[in-house]
Amino acid sequence: MPINFADRLLTAIKTKGSPACVGIDPIADRLPRPLRERIGRSGDEIDLIFEFCSEVIDAVADAAPAVKFQSACFERYRDQGVEAMWSLVQEAVDRELVVILDAKRGDIGVSAEHYAAATFDPPRCPNELAERRDTAHAITINSYLGADGILPFLRGGAGAFALVRTSNPSSDEVQRARLTTGDTLAESVARMVDRLGRDFIGESGYSNLGAVVGATKADEIERLRELMPRSIFLVPGYGAQGGTADDVKRCFNSDGRGAIITASRSVIFAFDADDDDDERWIEAIADAARRFAEEVSAIV
Amino acid sequence: MPINFADRLLTAIKTKGSPACVGIDPIADRLPRPLRERIGRSGDEIDLIFEFCSEVIDAVADAAPAVKFQSACFERYRDQGVEAMWSLVQEAVDRELVVILDAKRGDIGVSAEHYAAATFDPPRCPNELAERRDTAHAITINSYLGADGILPFLRGGAGAFALVRTSNPSSDEVQRARLTTGDTLAESVARMVDRLGRDFIGESGYSNLGAVVGATKADEIERLRELMPRSIFLVPGYGAQGGTADDVKRCFNSDGRGAIITASRSVIFAFDADDDDDERWIEAIADAARRFAEEVSAIV
Repeated sequence: MPINFADRLLTAIKTKGSPACVGIDPIADRLPRPLRERIGRSGDEIDLIFEFCSEVIDAVADAAPAVKFQSACFERYRDQGVEAMWSLVQEAVDRELVVILDAKRGDIGVSAEHYAAATFDPPRCPNELAERRDTAHAITINSYLGADGILPFLRGGAGAFALVRTSNPSSDEVQRARLTTGDTLAESVARMVDRLGRDFIGESGYSNLGAVVGATKADEIERLRELMPRSIFLVPGYGAQGGTADDVKRCFNSDGRGAIITASRSVIFAFDADDDDDERWIEAIADAARRFAEEVSAIV
Repeated sequence: MPINFADRLLTAIKTKGSPACVGIDPIADRLPRPLRERIGRSGDEIDLIFEFCSEVIDAVADAAPAVKFQSACFERYRDQGVEAMWSLVQEAVDRELVVILDAKRGDIGVSAEHYAAATFDPPRCPNELAERRDTAHAITINSYLGADGILPFLRGGAGAFALVRTSNPSSDEVQRARLTTGDTLAESVARMVDRLGRDFIGESGYSNLGAVVGATKADEIERLRELMPRSIFLVPGYGAQGGTADDVKRCFNSDGRGAIITASRSVIFAFDADDDDDERWIEAIADAARRFAEEVSAIV
């Protein structure tokens, strides 16, 4: 596999035939009934979440080229959650999935380097000789601190998706603020991302510095695509949050590349919450992942 | 102690007689020589960092009302680091220090709630009956996502400091962008913080929603103070990063309240790096904390 994140991701998208990314956002209350009923009886929440996610990774690995871990769902359980998450990352890497850590980190200098190291290059125990595979290929980061909060994440071919335009309603107050230059703030951040990303372009022609662009901001996507031609868009908000196929289509360049579309709850909670069958929920997730991958593939 | 964060912090500042906050930003390479020499021999880095921070907390607790943990320094060590950090938070709470988690989290909805829960309300083990004290009183958060990224952190009297104007050089490109309204982006974010914070004002007259305002942005501080009269400023950048006593003074309201000044490396690494005495570094840190607290106290 290519070392550069952008090349790796685009190769994986080509291999699987779909720019689909499954979001791993587990919540204890929404686990399948057979697991949910064991909470507090034969398992702590985090153990059951681990079991669930492990099945999810297995169920979606054939259909999707990438998974995105929502770090908050695991950090909720502090050290136990963090340990569980990185074990799951390893499972995903072992299934040859591209792994994006959705941690939205935003710090500078040494602190940013620590966050990057935790994501891409964890400390080795003295006696550990085997190659570690519990590392992500890319991380989501916040743009508010400028270049100082972005560049430390791009070392060694690693990938980062900087928040440019998020899908939530209240983001307009900041991201749609109109500057004297005529740009919205998001457009100005897009120019910054494009400029910084140009030093990290791989063989594919795309940069390791991508951008988070919500599918719900349809009227702004085309302009952002123009401003960041070399950045891969990580696109949340499709389906459940209201983004349509037409909206999502605008996230791609004319060559059909340049975006990866994420779906979380609509895939990983695609089972009947009251079904007490031990296995059926796994099939339901695999089916949903397949349908999602086909749907997104048809859009491009 | 008051339940509202702002009241708690202002009470602690009054009790200790100084608005000083010591930043706990440990780095293995900069540990005192007696600890540094044990790396890989009789202790893993994270264990030695834990030992170091435990002494730091003890050394600064008499002088400073608050400590700020840089989460990245601990997350660097993944689950082991996270476990160590929360044990240290408990030690700080036991010493009646106000604890700020500098994690700069920035997410929305359920994810923001998870981050808030991890900070203020961790999961209890089934057999755990005693009150847990390993929870922070406030967290730093990112403003780029708007209200959706801020409000979930303010439940139950908890505190949050939203990034408004950060001390790093490259922050200008985003935060100093000029809007058509005449505001800089940071000023516009300040208005948002002020508006959102008004629903969380305690007996002290200050809001649980504070603002991070770097001491290095001297010419902008007065205006930000005007725009957010009810917000406590968390002020990095004093000393080492170039912020002067005059700059810092502008962060306070005319009543002498409304800001807490942080210093990290100048306090916790105040010892002679080559000294192999087992105890002298602890005294050096305690002295530095005392001097810092007095210095800041004299400014107000």
